[in-house]
Amino acid sequence: MLEALKQTVYEANMALPANNLVTLTWGNVSQIDRDSGLFVIKPSGVAYDKLTPADMVVVDLDGRVVEGELNPSSDTPTHAYLYRHWPEVGGIVHTHSKWAVAFAQAGIPVPAAGTTHADTFYGDVPIADRLTQAEVDGDYELNTGQSIVRVFDRQHLDPMAIPGVLTNDHGPFTWGKDAKTAVQNAIVLDVVSEIDFHTMQLNPTQDLHVPQYLLDRHYFRKHGAHAYYGQGTH
Amino acid sequence: MLEALKQTVYEANMALPANNLVTLTWGNVSQIDRDSGLFVIKPSGVAYDKLTPADMVVVDLDGRVVEGELNPSSDTPTHAYLYRHWPEVGGIVHTHSKWAVAFAQAGIPVPAAGTTHADTFYGDVPIADRLTQAEVDGDYELNTGQSIVRVFDRQHLDPMAIPGVLTNDHGPFTWGKDAKTAVQNAIVLDVVSEIDFHTMQLNPTQDLHVPQYLLDRHYFRKHGAHAYYGQGTH
Amino acid sequence: MLEALKQTVYEANMALPANNLVTLTWGNVSQIDRDSGLFVIKPSGVAYDKLTPADMVVVDLDGRVVEGELNPSSDTPTHAYLYRHWPEVGGIVHTHSKWAVAFAQAGIPVPAAGTTHADTFYGDVPIADRLTQAEVDGDYELNTGQSIVRVFDRQHLDPMAIPGVLTNDHGPFTWGKDAKTAVQNAIVLDVVSEIDFHTMQLNPTQDLHVPQYLLDRHYFRKHGAHAYYGQGTH
Amino acid sequence: MLEALKQTVYEANMALPANNLVTLTWGNVSQIDRDSGLFVIKPSGVAYDKLTPADMVVVDLDGRVVEGELNPSSDTPTHAYLYRHWPEVGGIVHTHSKWAVAFAQAGIPVPAAGTTHADTFYGDVPIADRLTQAEVDGDYELNTGQSIVRVFDRQHLDPMAIPGVLTNDHGPFTWGKDAKTAVQNAIVLDVVSEIDFHTMQLNPTQDLHVPQYLLDRHYFRKHGAHAYYGQGTH
Repeated sequence: MLEALKQTVYEANMALPANNLVTLTWGNVSQIDRDSGLFVIKPSGVAYDKLTPADMVVVDLDGRVVEGELNPSSDTPTHAYLYRHWPEVGGIVHTHSKWAVAFAQAGIPVPAAGTTHADTFYGDVPIADRLTQAEVDGDYELNTGQSIVRVFDRQHLDPMAIPGVLTNDHGPFTWGKDAKTAVQNAIVLDVVSEIDFHTMQLNPTQDLHVPQYLLDRHYFRKHGAHAYYGQGTH
Repeated sequence: MLEALKQTVYEANMALPANNLVTLTWGNVSQIDRDSGLFVIKPSGVAYDKLTPADMVVVDLDGRVVEGELNPSSDTPTHAYLYRHWPEVGGIVHTHSKWAVAFAQAGIPVPAAGTTHADTFYGDVPIADRLTQAEVDGDYELNTGQSIVRVFDRQHLDPMAIPGVLTNDHGPFTWGKDAKTAVQNAIVLDVVSEIDFHTMQLNPTQDLHVPQYLLDRHYFRKHGAHAYYGQGTH
Repeated sequence: MLEALKQTVYEANMALPANNLVTLTWGNVSQIDRDSGLFVIKPSGVAYDKLTPADMVVVDLDGRVVEGELNPSSDTPTHAYLYRHWPEVGGIVHTHSKWAVAFAQAGIPVPAAGTTHADTFYGDVPIADRLTQAEVDGDYELNTGQSIVRVFDRQHLDPMAIPGVLTNDHGPFTWGKDAKTAVQNAIVLDVVSEIDFHTMQLNPTQDLHVPQYLLDRHYFRKHGAHAYYGQGTH
Repeated sequence: MLEALKQTVYEANMALPANNLVTLTWGNVSQIDRDSGLFVIKPSGVAYDKLTPADMVVVDLDGRVVEGELNPSSDTPTHAYLYRHWPEVGGIVHTHSKWAVAFAQAGIPVPAAGTTHADTFYGDVPIADRLTQAEVDGDYELNTGQSIVRVFDRQHLDPMAIPGVLTNDHGPFTWGKDAKTAVQNAIVLDVVSEIDFHTMQLNPTQDLHVPQYLLDRHYFRKHGAHAYYGQGTH
C-alpha cells in the first residue's frame, strides 16, 4: 500500500545525508496521505546506505504500525501528534543538524536576522519548553509533540508561516506541505542557525532582528497570492 | 540571440554551487553585452541541477525580458541598476554565501585585514545602508541597487577597485569586468569574511587593517599597469 | 592468524578518514580476540591509502608483537592497558579529531549538553589528568592508559556507559564492544564536541547539562533491557 | 632539465588543493636541487586544474629563471632567500590556508598547545615582524624572506625543528627536507591553527602551552635518533 508515497518518503530521507544534516542513523522524515489518514516514516536506527523504499513503515495517526516489517522511528509519536493537530502539515523532518542543535541546547530561538531567514520563516524559529520530569518519564515522544504545539499556541504562531521549531535540549523539527518541502526547511534552518551564530559573535550588542517591513517583503515575495519569486509553480 | 553569452552566464552560475557559495536555488549571475545594451541572467528559483544554457533570460537595461520563457531572477532590477550606473561593470553576482551574510546581518564592513583581501579588494568591502520602509515597500530590488551605489558615492570608492558590497540585512553582491571575474570576487569575499571573522575573535582589540602601503603593494601587484603577478594576460 | 579480525580492524581503521576524523597518518583502531588474549592494531605511521588488511599487527596483552612485519601503533601500550583493565572492552579507537582535541587541549570535559550526547554517553566525557614529568619521561603510552583508568575510577564511572575520554593535552580515546562500535563512538564524540562548543559560545552563563531524567531517558532508550530504539538487534 | 624534480614539485603543488589549503590560484611549492643550486617552483597565477609538470619553472638561487616559458611565482624571491640562508631546507610551501592566515592577520604565534602540534613543531610557530613601509616599497618578496629569518634568529629557533612561520598580515610559509614534507607541514600548521583557535575560545584564561617535557616526548618520538613512531624509514 502507498507505494508511491514510500518512494517519496525514501527519497526525502536520503536527502538528509546528501545535505549533511545527519550523522550515523540520526534523523527521520515522514509524509502523510490525508485521504487515508496514514503516514509513511523511516524505520528506526537503520543505516542510510542500507535503506530501501520497501523499508518504509506505514502508521496511522495514533502511531500504530499498519504495514511494514521494521519498527518505525522512535520519534513516530511526535510526528503523529503534529499531523493530528496541524491539518495543513503534509511532511515532517527531524534531524540533529549541528547548528540548529547548538541553539536547541542553548535554549534560545533562531532569530530572524536577515533576508535568508525571512525567505522561509516568517519570524523567529521558536524554542519549545524544556520537558518536565513527568513529561520525560511518561509518553516522552508524544509530550515532545505537545511541547511543540504549545509554544506555537502560546506565541500565536502559524505553523505554516514558521515551519520549524527547536525542541529544548534536543534539536530541530521542520515541516511543510510535503516531505520535500520539509527537508528544504530543515536545510534552511541549519544554514540560518550557522549564519546567525556568526552574526551574534560579530555584533553581540545588536538587536539581531530585521525590521518587520523587510520580513514582510521577503516572506511574501516567495509565499502567498502576491509571490513573484520563482516560476509561478511554487 | 546572444547564445555564446548564455553559455558563459550558465557556466558562471554553475560555478556558484561548485564553490559552495549557494544553498538550494539561491544566488544568481549575469553578464552584459554592452554593444546591444542587453544582459543575460539566471531564471528565478530554478534548481542548479536542472539549469541549462537555454534557460538563461535576456533582459534590457530596464530589466524587461527581451528573450526567454522563464522569469528572470527577482534580483534583476538590482543588476540593471548597477549596469546603468557603472559602465565598467561587465558581470554581477549575488549570493547568500554564509560568511559574507554574517557580516551583512551584523551590519559591519569586511575589513582589509590582510594581503588575501588586498590582492582583490583595495580597501574594506563596504556595507550599504539598511533600507527604509519606503524603500522596501516600493521598488525594493531597484532600491537595493541604489543603496549600493549610494555607499560607493558617499565613501568615494571606485567600484572597479572594490568590486563588492554587503547589502544590509541581506548579503553580498560582487562584480567585475565579466561574470567569471565577478564569481571569483564572490569566492574571495566569502573567504576573507571567514578569515576576518576568526582574526577578530583571536584579537578583538587590534586595529584589523593592514597598513596602506601594504594594501597598495598587494593590490597593484595584481592590478593595473605595474602588475607583476600572473602571466601578463590578466 | 586472526585473518577475519585483521579484515575487521582494517575496515574500522579505514572508517576514520572516511568520517573526517584523521589528518595524514594520525589515528588508530584495534579489536581484541578475548579467547586468545590477542588484539589486532594498525601499524604505526602508515598512510591510509597504502594500508591493507595484511599490514595489521597482532599483539598480546603486554603489547608484544605476535605476528606482523610492521611496527604496531606507538599507542599500542595504551590499548593494551585498557584491554587488561576493562574486560568488557572489545575495540578501541584513538584519533586527533579536531573538536575533541580542542576540549582535550582546553582541559575540560565534554558536557552532556543534549540528547545527541545522551544517546551515546551516559554523562560528561571526562578529561584525564595531565601527565607528570615522571609519567611522560617513563612508560609514556602505558601511563596514558593509567591516566584514563584513574579518572574513571576516581569519578566512579562505568567505561561501558561512557565509552570515551579525553587525554589531557592530547586527544580522544573511545571504545566499545567491538572496533566498529568504538569508531561510531569516536564519530559521536567529535560531533557533540563541535555542537557543545557552539552551545557554550551562544549561552556562556548557562548550566549546560541536561536534566538527569532526560539523560536517563535517552540513554536507556538505546541501551539495556528496556531499549526501544532501532530494530532490536542492537 | 630537472624533469624528475618538476614532476615532484608538480605533485606537491597539486596536493595543496587536494588538502583544501588553497582558494583559486593561491599558494605555491618549490623544491631545490642542492647539487646544481637550482630550484623548481610553480608558475605565477596559473589555475591548478590547468597545471602540468612541464609548466614548472627552474630558477637559480637569485630567483632568475633558468628554464621555463612562464613567469615563476611572485613569491620566488622569498623562496630563494630561505634556500640561501637555510641550507638544510629542501622544499618550501606558501599558502593562504584559512586558519593559519587568521593567526597571521591577528599577529600572534600558533601556540604549542597539544601533542598534535608537538609531533611536528618543536615549539610555537612564530609570527614574523610586520614589514615597514621601506621593506614593502622596496624588494618586498625578498624582505618577506628576511623577516622570516630574522624572527628565527632573534628567538634562537632551529628552522628544521620548527618548520614553519606566519608572515605578518599575510600567511604561512612551511618547509622541510623536501617539497612533500613541506606540504605535510602546511597541512599540520593549518590543522593546529584550527584546533588552537577553538581551544583559546573554550579556555581563554589558560596558559595554552603544553609542558616542555611533553613537547620533548612527542617531538623526539617522531624525530631524531631516538624516534620510535612509524616504520623506521622516516
